[in-house]
Amino acid sequence: MSEAENPQLPPNMEIELDESLHATTEKWFEYPVVVHPHHTDYGGIVWHGTYLSWMEEARVECLRSLGLDYGNFVKLGYELPVVEVNIRYHQSLKMGEQAIVKTRMNNIQGVRIYWDYQITNWRGSTTYVSGRVTLVGIDREKGKIMRQLPPMLLDTLVKL
Amino acid sequence: MSEAENPQLPPNMEIELDESLHATTEKWFEYPVVVHPHHTDYGGIVWHGTYLSWMEEARVECLRSLGLDYGNFVKLGYELPVVEVNIRYHQSLKMGEQAIVKTRMNNIQGVRIYWDYQITNWRGSTTYVSGRVTLVGIDREKGKIMRQLPPMLLDTLVKL
Amino acid sequence: MSEAENPQLPPNMEIELDESLHATTEKWFEYPVVVHPHHTDYGGIVWHGTYLSWMEEARVECLRSLGLDYGNFVKLGYELPVVEVNIRYHQSLKMGEQAIVKTRMNNIQGVRIYWDYQITNWRGSTTYVSGRVTLVGIDREKGKIMRQLPPMLLDTLVKL
Amino acid sequence: MSEAENPQLPPNMEIELDESLHATTEKWFEYPVVVHPHHTDYGGIVWHGTYLSWMEEARVECLRSLGLDYGNFVKLGYELPVVEVNIRYHQSLKMGEQAIVKTRMNNIQGVRIYWDYQITNWRGSTTYVSGRVTLVGIDREKGKIMRQLPPMLLDTLVKL
Repeated sequence: MSEAENPQLPPNMEIELDESLHATTEKWFEYPVVVHPHHTDYGGIVWHGTYLSWMEEARVECLRSLGLDYGNFVKLGYELPVVEVNIRYHQSLKMGEQAIVKTRMNNIQGVRIYWDYQITNWRGSTTYVSGRVTLVGIDREKGKIMRQLPPMLLDTLVKL
Repeated sequence: MSEAENPQLPPNMEIELDESLHATTEKWFEYPVVVHPHHTDYGGIVWHGTYLSWMEEARVECLRSLGLDYGNFVKLGYELPVVEVNIRYHQSLKMGEQAIVKTRMNNIQGVRIYWDYQITNWRGSTTYVSGRVTLVGIDREKGKIMRQLPPMLLDTLVKL
Repeated sequence: MSEAENPQLPPNMEIELDESLHATTEKWFEYPVVVHPHHTDYGGIVWHGTYLSWMEEARVECLRSLGLDYGNFVKLGYELPVVEVNIRYHQSLKMGEQAIVKTRMNNIQGVRIYWDYQITNWRGSTTYVSGRVTLVGIDREKGKIMRQLPPMLLDTLVKL
Repeated sequence: MSEAENPQLPPNMEIELDESLHATTEKWFEYPVVVHPHHTDYGGIVWHGTYLSWMEEARVECLRSLGLDYGNFVKLGYELPVVEVNIRYHQSLKMGEQAIVKTRMNNIQGVRIYWDYQITNWRGSTTYVSGRVTLVGIDREKGKIMRQLPPMLLDTLVKL
């Protein structure tokens, strides 16, 4: 509730000390994208909300590459909704251009999972967008935050 | 560039001291929304990216209520792209539910404009989402950040 | 299945003769829209898929105006998915422009409901888009087409 | 205008007899897709409008496979907006599932290009969606329909 009253979003991530796993890796998962017409806006560039779709796709495909099918994960009664998004837009991406959405899990703290993002050109010399997305584990049936992440997910994330 | 290298997004807003206008107001502009099927995802709740559409609509309609038509603004060669987004998701909004997107300009610093958001139920007793969006003034022809915001915009924002 | 083999989509609606209700009305339900940045594409006009969102919103709000809350309808175990869409794009709608999405139920045939659309300017002198959307009643639990539409829906639609 | 008055959309394609190229091919271009959370709605299935995004992506990638970069095409002052869409939804596609968007150019009549679609499972044994999309060549500067399609496009389409 105090969070809700404060729209300035102070980064109080450091408060949560009960981290069960520090899993920062140097390696990024790379997900290629192409700017199609439906991604653009009147400025001829990618609309700022489109990046959230790409970041979600990259995250789901990163998990799939590690053996976790998010569709199955949901069928098993789990869910990983987004609870926080922080994005910086550095350069615009234009209609028809190609880019790489780079993502890596930065950290797990309790049932929170932090994913970092960099969206760059193919050479990696230009960064269009950088960001972080925070997920939290949910028990779909109870509609509540889980007390701990399910083993099938932790086993997958350890591979990162 | 150093921004791009740091995806943790340290909140360095306070560095920019050349503020030309401190315009925080107590008053929120209120923009009502209804959750339609296309706003939802498999969880039966609003997909996290949908909120960016609503926040953009609320911002554009807030400016319109002050006499600035954003469509005209663009035709005149200006643009206010989003350069930073910070969103916290507190409670989910379900299919068919109604909510109020509350927005207010928090501050102008140089050519940067900060908008705060709270998305709540009608009574204001539940906050679903809170966030901040940062815009920057762009000269469309030059494709560059403006040295100062155009008077027609500043005159409008002062009304806030 | 034979439908699936034929992508040319012959209009075989006339085959279904078991119509339970002929409900064409002269009166259109009117749903106003404004073209915001997220609705547009690189051409500065509304992206062609955006219209489906607006048509869905207009349909849901038309039902609400008749006393049927679609969110409740879904909670009760029913659903009205789209099974066919036919749209013609006559004129483009530009960034910042306003329009009216006009819709009316054209007909009910068994568990199929046909909705007609015209998206025009405020005066009605320019038609941007015209179209038809076909819905079918589904029992969510069984995942099957209903044998007949639920009375609460028929009672609502008769008001049209 | 008479089109606009008739939302029933009679298929009057056969009226246009000045066809410059009959190019129906047996071969489909295949574009794989995965159902990510942002593609779904409250029913746990792909929202009906999402298919238009996939159909656009498949079309643009089909042209790219033939040597035509749509981004460049736009930069050269041309555009191929959608003027008609006809879609039938046969089976729903669920969260996490994979599918193939199959597309082929069916015909060119004057400056109109007809694309057929079938969205199926990998084996091709289930068809989720079938449809047709009609494009028309536009001169971006004049904002008008072209008298004939530019040679660079015709040369590409002949390869189909």
